[in-house]
Amino acid sequence: MTTNLNQHRSIRKYKDTPISEEMLSEILYAGTRASTTGNMQVYSIIATRDNEIKAELSPCHFNQPMIKEAPLVLTFCADFNRFNKWCQQNDAKPGYDNFLSFITAAIDALLVAQNVCIAAENEGLGICYLGTTIYTAEKIIEILDLPPGVVPITTLTLGYPDEAPPLTDRLPLDAVVHYEKYTDYSKEKIDELYSEKEKLESNKQFIEENGVKNLAQVFTDVRYKKGDNVAFSNALLEVLKKQGFMEQ
Amino acid sequence: MTTNLNQHRSIRKYKDTPISEEMLSEILYAGTRASTTGNMQVYSIIATRDNEIKAELSPCHFNQPMIKEAPLVLTFCADFNRFNKWCQQNDAKPGYDNFLSFITAAIDALLVAQNVCIAAENEGLGICYLGTTIYTAEKIIEILDLPPGVVPITTLTLGYPDEAPPLTDRLPLDAVVHYEKYTDYSKEKIDELYSEKEKLESNKQFIEENGVKNLAQVFTDVRYKKGDNVAFSNALLEVLKKQGFMEQ
Repeated sequence: MTTNLNQHRSIRKYKDTPISEEMLSEILYAGTRASTTGNMQVYSIIATRDNEIKAELSPCHFNQPMIKEAPLVLTFCADFNRFNKWCQQNDAKPGYDNFLSFITAAIDALLVAQNVCIAAENEGLGICYLGTTIYTAEKIIEILDLPPGVVPITTLTLGYPDEAPPLTDRLPLDAVVHYEKYTDYSKEKIDELYSEKEKLESNKQFIEENGVKNLAQVFTDVRYKKGDNVAFSNALLEVLKKQGFMEQ
Repeated sequence: MTTNLNQHRSIRKYKDTPISEEMLSEILYAGTRASTTGNMQVYSIIATRDNEIKAELSPCHFNQPMIKEAPLVLTFCADFNRFNKWCQQNDAKPGYDNFLSFITAAIDALLVAQNVCIAAENEGLGICYLGTTIYTAEKIIEILDLPPGVVPITTLTLGYPDEAPPLTDRLPLDAVVHYEKYTDYSKEKIDELYSEKEKLESNKQFIEENGVKNLAQVFTDVRYKKGDNVAFSNALLEVLKKQGFMEQ
């Protein structure tokens, strides 16, 4: 099974074959078996198959074609709305309108999402995470009718794979693991840890295509730029306020 | 395999049997195969086995006995420190000192954590998540020498199980899944969705032990209280500032 975890690739091209109701229930159920804080299950999953709604969501994900082409889009949300309602109608005063509760609920949603991925891949489906969800949460909230207490955290597209991409590179294990305590990185260590990545043909091509000096600049100057990050940060903090998670 | 995901229980009692180096590498490697935003891998895992450091961490996790008793403690961190260093020494200016970057890195860390759990369970290990990590992040940062750009998000204790607890309850699938868009809950629906949970003997016992009126009050008045949540929220926001994630 570990082999299976180790074979994960993001799949961006899908066959038209729909996902059966039974399989959908099965992979979502596997999601619900993930641990959540205090077993509160403060998350929701929105399963979207309707082409019109997928088309509406598409710009929120920068029009990446997977959103319209995948038979299934799952939006994983931090959700205290359901739990708050349960508390309120039971004469219990919820104190979950704060930042900690948002993070708690986001953690729940993400552990569930990863379980769903693994269950889906075990059924022969391919998946792709869309990091754009937290950039455009406000618009997604509007499209999916998310009430206060609910914030979308990540999105998956799912379907039967119509491509078989190679495994993508990873940093060596000792780049991301520290034993006992954190050991900070020397300049030489950083050079060593990133050297394989920098040597990849595909990354050299990125550098050339984007007219930058090196791979690090592909990230800072092209893909994940400070200006965008700051704008998305402010938008996301506004969303947290609006959805009722910044009342400390 | 889905069966395996569906059999997850939190394990809080462990045998003394240590986890071999080989198994540790294998489960950590499975973690690294999880998707991360832009394949940036902006997370770190601190693997702690030293009894003295575990003892230091123990109060951060409210002295839950697992921390000292488990042979292995893994602290999963949002980590832009390594990536920032790589950028800086490559004449690339990182723009990752903001809230969006923190959330991006936290997402990475959590998807990796769940992969590690599943790989560990597949090897016959038991795991338990500790939600306390985000409550006491400041102290954990100190103990584990986490530099700026690094924030602990969640912790796992791992070891060979010395107990076989029953599966815990979950809300019915239609409590957490919405089709196409979000359908908000009526009072009747909430009652229906939580009724099984409210009827459980173990939960009735909680109510009695804590001298509250119902299960919802166990959460609001005993386990996850507003005052604590507000204090932990403020502490966590301070940590984000201090670690350099609130510079927008």
